[in-house]
Amino acid sequence: MTTPILAASRRTRRTPFSPRVEAHGVKGYTVYNHMLLATVFNTVEEDYRHLKSRVQVWDVGCERQVEVSGPDAARLIQLMTPRNMDRVVIGQCAYAPLVDETGAMINDPVVLKLAEDRFWISIADSDVVLWAKGLAYGMGLSVEIFEPAVWPLAIQGPLADDLTARVFGEEVRAIRFFRFAELEFHGHSFVVARSGWSKQGGFEVYVDDAEIGLALYDALFAGGEDLDVRPGCPNLIERIEGGLFSYGNDMTIENNPFECGLDKFCNLDAGIEFIGREALQQLQAQGGAQRVIRGVTFEGDNCPACVEAWPVTSGGQHAGHLTSAAHSPDFGTNIGFAMIERFAWEPGTEVTVETPLGPHTGRVSALPFER
Amino acid sequence: MTTPILAASRRTRRTPFSPRVEAHGVKGYTVYNHMLLATVFNTVEEDYRHLKSRVQVWDVGCERQVEVSGPDAARLIQLMTPRNMDRVVIGQCAYAPLVDETGAMINDPVVLKLAEDRFWISIADSDVVLWAKGLAYGMGLSVEIFEPAVWPLAIQGPLADDLTARVFGEEVRAIRFFRFAELEFHGHSFVVARSGWSKQGGFEVYVDDAEIGLALYDALFAGGEDLDVRPGCPNLIERIEGGLFSYGNDMTIENNPFECGLDKFCNLDAGIEFIGREALQQLQAQGGAQRVIRGVTFEGDNCPACVEAWPVTSGGQHAGHLTSAAHSPDFGTNIGFAMIERFAWEPGTEVTVETPLGPHTGRVSALPFER
Repeated sequence: MTTPILAASRRTRRTPFSPRVEAHGVKGYTVYNHMLLATVFNTVEEDYRHLKSRVQVWDVGCERQVEVSGPDAARLIQLMTPRNMDRVVIGQCAYAPLVDETGAMINDPVVLKLAEDRFWISIADSDVVLWAKGLAYGMGLSVEIFEPAVWPLAIQGPLADDLTARVFGEEVRAIRFFRFAELEFHGHSFVVARSGWSKQGGFEVYVDDAEIGLALYDALFAGGEDLDVRPGCPNLIERIEGGLFSYGNDMTIENNPFECGLDKFCNLDAGIEFIGREALQQLQAQGGAQRVIRGVTFEGDNCPACVEAWPVTSGGQHAGHLTSAAHSPDFGTNIGFAMIERFAWEPGTEVTVETPLGPHTGRVSALPFER
Repeated sequence: MTTPILAASRRTRRTPFSPRVEAHGVKGYTVYNHMLLATVFNTVEEDYRHLKSRVQVWDVGCERQVEVSGPDAARLIQLMTPRNMDRVVIGQCAYAPLVDETGAMINDPVVLKLAEDRFWISIADSDVVLWAKGLAYGMGLSVEIFEPAVWPLAIQGPLADDLTARVFGEEVRAIRFFRFAELEFHGHSFVVARSGWSKQGGFEVYVDDAEIGLALYDALFAGGEDLDVRPGCPNLIERIEGGLFSYGNDMTIENNPFECGLDKFCNLDAGIEFIGREALQQLQAQGGAQRVIRGVTFEGDNCPACVEAWPVTSGGQHAGHLTSAAHSPDFGTNIGFAMIERFAWEPGTEVTVETPLGPHTGRVSALPFER
């Protein structure tokens, strides 16, 4: 069977960088927040090798922003997350799980505090804009909520600081992890954050001007030839190795933050008011998570795509399901994430992963994976 | 350049029918409501010929349902749409645009009234579940809202009645347009509606049991061999010929229902309470739409995919943008939908469509297209 192409339409939105991404020969796309996201340029393994040793420029325009501003903006942001936002300062990027009144995960975005009364919720793949707008309307809050024309561009890899400094100046090196600065390029001020969906280090530039953004894109490639800069994208192998969960893959609206290992972002004793507080308190009183996302290593020299949850058993009993998987060349084994029941979640527990190629013996691992 | 494949992951959810669709050799996919939707099996033109002459079975599991039930269910449904839902009866499918407080289009679903206090909102491509949940929480409504495990299967084409009758019995012929009945197959009761996203007639079966659903799928193919039943999917050419707009393509949250020609679903004088009422009344007082979706016919023997809005001019002036396009073999011309400004919206107005292949002369058309 031929692998189906992604049929293109206006609905699966392009980014300002799509023509460049296609000129670079993108081989795979996914759709994320109704927008195109590249998944592979050479092979997933070659992209991985390069990401871990050089520097890549990623079109992550699909990381949509939900802008919340106005007198009640800070209140709405706090209502949406169990993380205590009191101490988040302007210039900070705060990872903040969003939950509903039952404690179910709505999304796991990074919130950028642009001003005391203005935020960008940099979202994973669900329409947070509708959740926020519904809440604001229903509660009569004085806020403005919309998805601005902002398309992040990520610069990731061990040489990301060098490349970014060549374009934005040496001050990028001073930006701390999960902080942002406003830096100029071609006379335009860009939000530049030290963040990104890899563990190789780097920046995300929040491009809010398509034309200057393209000039920036080209300047990164022109300026980085000797650094072997290449186009890239979130890499399946690297993100599993690095313990980065994906909303929609590893956690869904069926899960609560405790199951996702996000306890430290649930500040139940901080005296803050947020949606789902009672539900999370009740879950905590009942002993917290009954299952949790763990790493799993399992035998195999290659690994099929995990396109549906794979059953995981331990001692013949149902022990959970595996949700992302890849072969890790550097670890020399298959690796993945699995939602694992309490009885089997101790690192080291032997499990069987029911892959489409048959059962594979594996072992539960703490995260990040230990080599 | 190679056309990028759709990279598969759990996040772009499969349906229970995906293995069948792939065994049938699906060539193109899109992602719709975070779920796979086939776009082509043979060629778009061959699929179109077959759809217009025979019968097809479509996996439209991506047509997700948002179930709203409970004491305030009817109230919330009415709050979400300017359509007067008072006269909608149990067993009816009601096309109902959803708008926000500014009158902006959130989605354009079909609402199935299952009981006085239970509805399915059969959605286009946006997370209506989050909008509904946000409103319900904010307003303190007594409702339960979730996305049930329901995957519609459509039977479309001129022979759809014959095929469906062979599987569900002759009573399917009595189902009126946009009504549903509950009919048995293998001892399970299915919601069967006379509806579907083509103009060739047919049914949508709301499959809420994956296993019996697969048996149903297979029974439709086994029972329809002499009818030349084939796998199919919404067809770009046929849906444009038929005047079926697509949310995300032809209308977005940037549009109001008047611009989408949905005036008759805006019952502003019915004395009903809904979100966006004041905004729509104000728009109406200002003369209604200043631009509207029209058909456009334009020269050409073939047509590239419209993956971004194409500018439309008239007399050298900006007149709008074209959002969906295809070559229609039966009409013998290229056809499309465009949001056209008032000064140029009269049917017959000559326009120029700026396609990626250069400017093409065209003409504004009423909808449905006249041959």
